[in-house]
Amino acid sequence: MATLRLAGWAKALEYSDLPSDVVRAAVRSFYNWAGCTIGGSNHAATLIARQSLAPFFGASTSTLLGHKGEVKIDAQHAALINGIASHVHDYDDTHLDTIIHPTGPVASALLAAAEWRTGVSGQDFIAALVAGIEAECKVGLAVWPEHYDVGWHITSSTGSIGAAVAVSKILGLTMSETAHAIGLAATQVVGLREMFGSHTKSFHPGRAAQCGLLAAVMAQGGYTSSETTLEAKRGWANVVGSSKADILQSLDKWVGGEGEFSLVNNGVGRWEILRNSFKPFPCGIVIHPIIDACAQLHGEILSKNLDIHKIKSVTAKVHPLVLELTGKKTPKDGLEAKFSVYHSGACGLRFGKATPAEYDDAVVLDPEVIAIRDRITAEINTALTPDQAMVTVELEDGQVFTKTIEHAIGSLEVPLDETMLKTNAPPVLGEGATAASKACWEIEAAEDICNITQFM
Amino acid sequence: MATLRLAGWAKALEYSDLPSDVVRAAVRSFYNWAGCTIGGSNHAATLIARQSLAPFFGASTSTLLGHKGEVKIDAQHAALINGIASHVHDYDDTHLDTIIHPTGPVASALLAAAEWRTGVSGQDFIAALVAGIEAECKVGLAVWPEHYDVGWHITSSTGSIGAAVAVSKILGLTMSETAHAIGLAATQVVGLREMFGSHTKSFHPGRAAQCGLLAAVMAQGGYTSSETTLEAKRGWANVVGSSKADILQSLDKWVGGEGEFSLVNNGVGRWEILRNSFKPFPCGIVIHPIIDACAQLHGEILSKNLDIHKIKSVTAKVHPLVLELTGKKTPKDGLEAKFSVYHSGACGLRFGKATPAEYDDAVVLDPEVIAIRDRITAEINTALTPDQAMVTVELEDGQVFTKTIEHAIGSLEVPLDETMLKTNAPPVLGEGATAASKACWEIEAAEDICNITQFM
Repeated sequence: MATLRLAGWAKALEYSDLPSDVVRAAVRSFYNWAGCTIGGSNHAATLIARQSLAPFFGASTSTLLGHKGEVKIDAQHAALINGIASHVHDYDDTHLDTIIHPTGPVASALLAAAEWRTGVSGQDFIAALVAGIEAECKVGLAVWPEHYDVGWHITSSTGSIGAAVAVSKILGLTMSETAHAIGLAATQVVGLREMFGSHTKSFHPGRAAQCGLLAAVMAQGGYTSSETTLEAKRGWANVVGSSKADILQSLDKWVGGEGEFSLVNNGVGRWEILRNSFKPFPCGIVIHPIIDACAQLHGEILSKNLDIHKIKSVTAKVHPLVLELTGKKTPKDGLEAKFSVYHSGACGLRFGKATPAEYDDAVVLDPEVIAIRDRITAEINTALTPDQAMVTVELEDGQVFTKTIEHAIGSLEVPLDETMLKTNAPPVLGEGATAASKACWEIEAAEDICNITQFM
Repeated sequence: MATLRLAGWAKALEYSDLPSDVVRAAVRSFYNWAGCTIGGSNHAATLIARQSLAPFFGASTSTLLGHKGEVKIDAQHAALINGIASHVHDYDDTHLDTIIHPTGPVASALLAAAEWRTGVSGQDFIAALVAGIEAECKVGLAVWPEHYDVGWHITSSTGSIGAAVAVSKILGLTMSETAHAIGLAATQVVGLREMFGSHTKSFHPGRAAQCGLLAAVMAQGGYTSSETTLEAKRGWANVVGSSKADILQSLDKWVGGEGEFSLVNNGVGRWEILRNSFKPFPCGIVIHPIIDACAQLHGEILSKNLDIHKIKSVTAKVHPLVLELTGKKTPKDGLEAKFSVYHSGACGLRFGKATPAEYDDAVVLDPEVIAIRDRITAEINTALTPDQAMVTVELEDGQVFTKTIEHAIGSLEVPLDETMLKTNAPPVLGEGATAASKACWEIEAAEDICNITQFM
């Protein structure tokens, strides 16, 4: 029953049902997504996708973010390309329990669809965004961690389902149509982890957005799939759940049942969007504690008027996942460097920060950065949680500095405040960034979502 | 090395390398695909897809089959919608070793791309078609049967790779770009078997075609994926191979190695396209022996001037897969009836044939057909091969007729000849069917593939 119950829950959810903290989390998620997408709009991956696919563009209804509303393309391609831009800097949000980046697939599809259909209010947009994010995170929890371990990029493999649920809401699909949309989305499983470090990692949430949008549109037209897609013997959970032993119980626990965690247990269960977090650094979240430590050490060393280049050695004690996911010792470009704890730590020490600029190819190949990078040793410490790290720097003169991080900045325990919530937008939009920022924060009040995209 | 070797092999393959029987198989495959696609062009699933997605159509470059060249849409949507039409009657070809329907994903993408780019000769088209079909069948063999057993629709989960390889050839991608196209295609895994019996079964090869086309176009633009997608630890074979124990050896055996079966062992190994077969009946191939037997019994009973409606009972001895895949006792419409050995056998007995007309919803609900259907008992006989069946009919007057099938019509042992190769096209194209048929048979001679689509 998971599929139909998810469809029924999503169909019934209204803005007025949402607790205020859920609304606030949704607005923050949208704001952060818009900033990431604007910031990623001039990345090579985004530009290649746009240029390659231009011969196929249809009617210009939906905004390509990063051009102050001046570039519109068809909704299918807008969903894809905005989705790519949203993830290409690895700067987007993270649902910590599943490491899904939830807003990319859902918001990319939703904004494109809302502009295509017109007349969608900010409040209806928020309700649909929440429904989509809850759907993808809950189905993700049902298959976690086996699904990710075997090699699926869980952001996109669940993202198409979230996008379909969200778009189904604003298009006004019935419960049954929504179930068929979930089926059409779930039968398109996007995202192998092998792609990490290449442009295709960012293709994943973009294509998931497009798949979800397509699914909702076709289901509304009467295209049939199945009303038992998630739970069927040869349905989504069994096929992509990688032989998780209790997959159907897990699906019921998180999606279709009535227990504490189930999505349909609205108002009693928990909201996944409240567990969404925002990144201070544009790279895999497992490196964040090390960057946090290194950036703080940068400040300490400089405050004593010492030379950051006279580092003799750096030892980072890290959780095992850090080396599994981000163990690249000699990244050859910016995308690979996001999977290098060594480059990321070196930027923290050298610059006191890690923003998209520190992942430019030129910085990755900068001899001064490489000199520091190559002095970093990462040691696995199985006693650490993923959120902890300890970094020790020894200078050539023998002075030693140590920093221990319990919870990295950006975690639920040390959240980014509103002013720190990086938008990424200023370098792309210039003076227009203020207007874009204001429009995003005020999304709830928009009578028609089309009124705010002109600033984005 | 499988990915790069596949890319290198495909890039190097030329029309002049192809043995004459391979060329003939390719032309037959294309002809059969065109017939199925034209025949499926007015099915509800095809029409819904076309109507729902019309708001997103781009430049009109590529023919939607079934309209004598009068309807063109953008290449991406043409690939999708022709792919849906090609499979919607379950009438398309079958690679018997994997039950992949190989031509749908590849030809749907290839024809759309060739018309978009223009100037692609019939011979280059044939070489690309062969490359794509070999690629999808070989990667399919590498993961067969675990991949299918767990629930993937292997036609589409491998079809995107075949489509990407084929389109890469006609677009002129380098070996490295082709490898990245394979990666972009492989990271979009389309097709859950749960969808069998719904419109979405036909969506699968259509979407695979579109995914492969998109992959080749983006890779040519410089969008990067991975050059080790198939064989990497968290790459395609490991992720979708469902823990097949020797997956990497299997991949080498069929794709990247140099042994008897390997794809790169061109000229020494075997050609999968020679193992492609064509369907006399528009339904799952496992039912074909029963329909064959029933249709022959129809002829025998009528030849004795006996009344086919006076059947007392029918007993069909079948391979176990028949009931696993097609055990629906009371199908409610034509799509479900394709998964009913009972309805299919009843049509063989009642009409002496099973064509798309026998899977119209009205026939499925016809009381006379239902009366025969409900008298059929299917018994599993594990001694039978999938190609064998034995059907016994007892009439009310006690007369008994029995037919044993060793190899169903349409199998490699009893292939359809040219005149029997159903095109499906006549009811759709009317008098234009002859011109369409001629154009397809003469594809090899076409200077530009655009010259033949005007008849299709």
